[in-house]
Amino acid sequence: MCSLVDNVAMPGVRDRYVALFRDKWPTERLQYFSDAVFAIAMTLLVLDIEIPDVQESRLGDALRNALPQVFAFVLSFAVIAATWVAHHRRFEIVRVADRRLVQLNFALLLVVTFLPFPTAVLSEYGSETPAVVLYAGTVGALGLIQLVTWSHARTAGLLKTEIDEATYRYGRRAHVVDPAVFLTSIVVALVGFPLAAMLTWLAIPPASWLVRRTADRGGSIG
Amino acid sequence: MCSLVDNVAMPGVRDRYVALFRDKWPTERLQYFSDAVFAIAMTLLVLDIEIPDVQESRLGDALRNALPQVFAFVLSFAVIAATWVAHHRRFEIVRVADRRLVQLNFALLLVVTFLPFPTAVLSEYGSETPAVVLYAGTVGALGLIQLVTWSHARTAGLLKTEIDEATYRYGRRAHVVDPAVFLTSIVVALVGFPLAAMLTWLAIPPASWLVRRTADRGGSIG
Amino acid sequence: MCSLVDNVAMPGVRDRYVALFRDKWPTERLQYFSDAVFAIAMTLLVLDIEIPDVQESRLGDALRNALPQVFAFVLSFAVIAATWVAHHRRFEIVRVADRRLVQLNFALLLVVTFLPFPTAVLSEYGSETPAVVLYAGTVGALGLIQLVTWSHARTAGLLKTEIDEATYRYGRRAHVVDPAVFLTSIVVALVGFPLAAMLTWLAIPPASWLVRRTADRGGSIG
Amino acid sequence: MCSLVDNVAMPGVRDRYVALFRDKWPTERLQYFSDAVFAIAMTLLVLDIEIPDVQESRLGDALRNALPQVFAFVLSFAVIAATWVAHHRRFEIVRVADRRLVQLNFALLLVVTFLPFPTAVLSEYGSETPAVVLYAGTVGALGLIQLVTWSHARTAGLLKTEIDEATYRYGRRAHVVDPAVFLTSIVVALVGFPLAAMLTWLAIPPASWLVRRTADRGGSIG
Repeated sequence: MCSLVDNVAMPGVRDRYVALFRDKWPTERLQYFSDAVFAIAMTLLVLDIEIPDVQESRLGDALRNALPQVFAFVLSFAVIAATWVAHHRRFEIVRVADRRLVQLNFALLLVVTFLPFPTAVLSEYGSETPAVVLYAGTVGALGLIQLVTWSHARTAGLLKTEIDEATYRYGRRAHVVDPAVFLTSIVVALVGFPLAAMLTWLAIPPASWLVRRTADRGGSIG
Repeated sequence: MCSLVDNVAMPGVRDRYVALFRDKWPTERLQYFSDAVFAIAMTLLVLDIEIPDVQESRLGDALRNALPQVFAFVLSFAVIAATWVAHHRRFEIVRVADRRLVQLNFALLLVVTFLPFPTAVLSEYGSETPAVVLYAGTVGALGLIQLVTWSHARTAGLLKTEIDEATYRYGRRAHVVDPAVFLTSIVVALVGFPLAAMLTWLAIPPASWLVRRTADRGGSIG
Repeated sequence: MCSLVDNVAMPGVRDRYVALFRDKWPTERLQYFSDAVFAIAMTLLVLDIEIPDVQESRLGDALRNALPQVFAFVLSFAVIAATWVAHHRRFEIVRVADRRLVQLNFALLLVVTFLPFPTAVLSEYGSETPAVVLYAGTVGALGLIQLVTWSHARTAGLLKTEIDEATYRYGRRAHVVDPAVFLTSIVVALVGFPLAAMLTWLAIPPASWLVRRTADRGGSIG
Repeated sequence: MCSLVDNVAMPGVRDRYVALFRDKWPTERLQYFSDAVFAIAMTLLVLDIEIPDVQESRLGDALRNALPQVFAFVLSFAVIAATWVAHHRRFEIVRVADRRLVQLNFALLLVVTFLPFPTAVLSEYGSETPAVVLYAGTVGALGLIQLVTWSHARTAGLLKTEIDEATYRYGRRAHVVDPAVFLTSIVVALVGFPLAAMLTWLAIPPASWLVRRTADRGGSIG
């Protein structure tokens, strides 16, 4: 008897508890928190550039030898900066966040905070296959998570503006380029051409431009 | 004579001094400050993953050997993320902070900033008893401090919404699971089963679900 | 001729240039920036606790040996937390900042960001005289800069609330305790008693309480 | 046929997509993000001061030997603080940001996050030519990027207040001093006088004062 009554009455407790918290989250604190993580990950990258430990007369050579490390620093800085810009843009049209969006955002931040590690490995081991695969996999994951987040935000009705189907697919297509190139480069590295794999990364700017142009031209791809 | 007058008159000085500052604190700056600490602690975790220092041909093996360190990184990231979500939710219903709440919040932040150390020890020494005890103790402390903070906020009338007794006990019970599991795992580790202790941590998601379900069902536990 | 005309006419250029910028600064961005520095310095402290590098069977002992480092971590965390609370309180009654206040604030932040270094030295060398002097000097400087900042804010009319002389002297007196104790401890350390110097730091809570009580009682000190 | 129709109709998709995002960015999130990077870079500088690893009796000497590292820490702290103040002032008169301003801002942040590396090299190798050139080049780049940013903001009409030509040139002239001195010091270092190059940095305060005074006096330079 008692448990029957409870079954009827007690869900009220849970409802009252849940009602204490807004079901959906305003995105402001989420954005500022994400910004802080982006900013810190970006700034920690410099710690991977090793201070040379050589005789004073050989400092010039040692600094020249540090150039690949500086290159890896600039590359990862650019990756995080581009991710921040995309994050900023996306959240401008997000009206509200739900629990799943918060989780996806944390998945993104996890990969962002992890990035200094593959960067350090890449700057230490240059074009070795495992270093290239680790780096490309990490950056590719960044792109995939963003793609899933964007899909979820639309499906769950979290966006500010109503987006029609064609516009949505246009936007999604533009976000496919980065993961596609990075995941392709993993294959290229695994079959034995890690240096070529790194060079494919340079294809991102022209490929992005091409996809945008094609999309402008018509629905042939969409 | 003079000191008698002072005894009457001078407390006014203190009153005027105290009146300069609001007695209770708006929580906004407290939240942003806490967010910054969460974000930084989260991002520093990656520094505990050691860059391999091996011959180039052995890099793949070295990266595989770093997997426990990556696991510890992800675990602590998840702990801080969950703490941030709980902090975010709680402070949404806090109307104002008093001195004690600020102190409790700093105790929480102290443990959060300390977390990279037990994480590094865990990732270095795996399932050694002292490493497991240190880690479980730290995460258990996080849960206990949150429990005390929640109690204090209610007792001192700092909450926005009036919460009735049943709802409050429902919410508190949900927050007991984490410390209970972690403190139990300390005992398990100390009697000689550190690996089993780590496995008990996996009991948190089902235990949380069970507690929630039981609470929904009725007052038999409450 | 031309230069005479310039002398009359051209100061207008400078005036127009200066007028572009508000002469006094709103304090919000200054507060958030300071908060970020406090949060980061606080979180970096943990990096000074060394991960033990011993045989697995000796991990327990190694962790016990790290206790002085944990103590130094907690001490400096408390120092930064107390400085943040004081900063928060002070800026609540600051109406606007001028160039000098911004400079004094940067001097404070310089010492805050420097604190991890003396902390690491203290945790490494324990009660050696130079370690104690360096630490006490750094924390004493924190107190002195806050005292000067408070004086300047009052003198330059930057405060929100009009503060009468007695109230101001009451507030100032409370802020004299910390630097006084730390600077005294430097002398104690230099004459050969570094351990005793560290113990004098424990006098801060009762001394603060005494000063407050005396001030409440009357003008005998003021 | 179809592609002709697409050529007419489909740009609408792109327009609708672009219209989802505001074309120009409000500067608030950009400022907070930049602040976080400034704050972190500033705080990381302390990690370059090495904890002495000597016998306890030699700690005093070891700390004295760390003085050049402390000097480099203070110098770079001052550089970042001055850049933050300039950034703060500039963005107070920026009405809105466009894509190029965001890119220029990231270029600035890239150099800011890089600064701890030249600082560490300078503090390690003192007045060696490559260390001085690297440091002066980095700080000179900071100045040049700010100059370009300021030019762009005016040209692209992003400023809040209409600035007349004379006022603009006055402002720009003041920002030329820093890069001019640092780039000059590179030449001085390269021809073999690295210590003298470092001393030229001391010319910045009087040179700034002189430029301001000359500008006040007349258009003879402008």
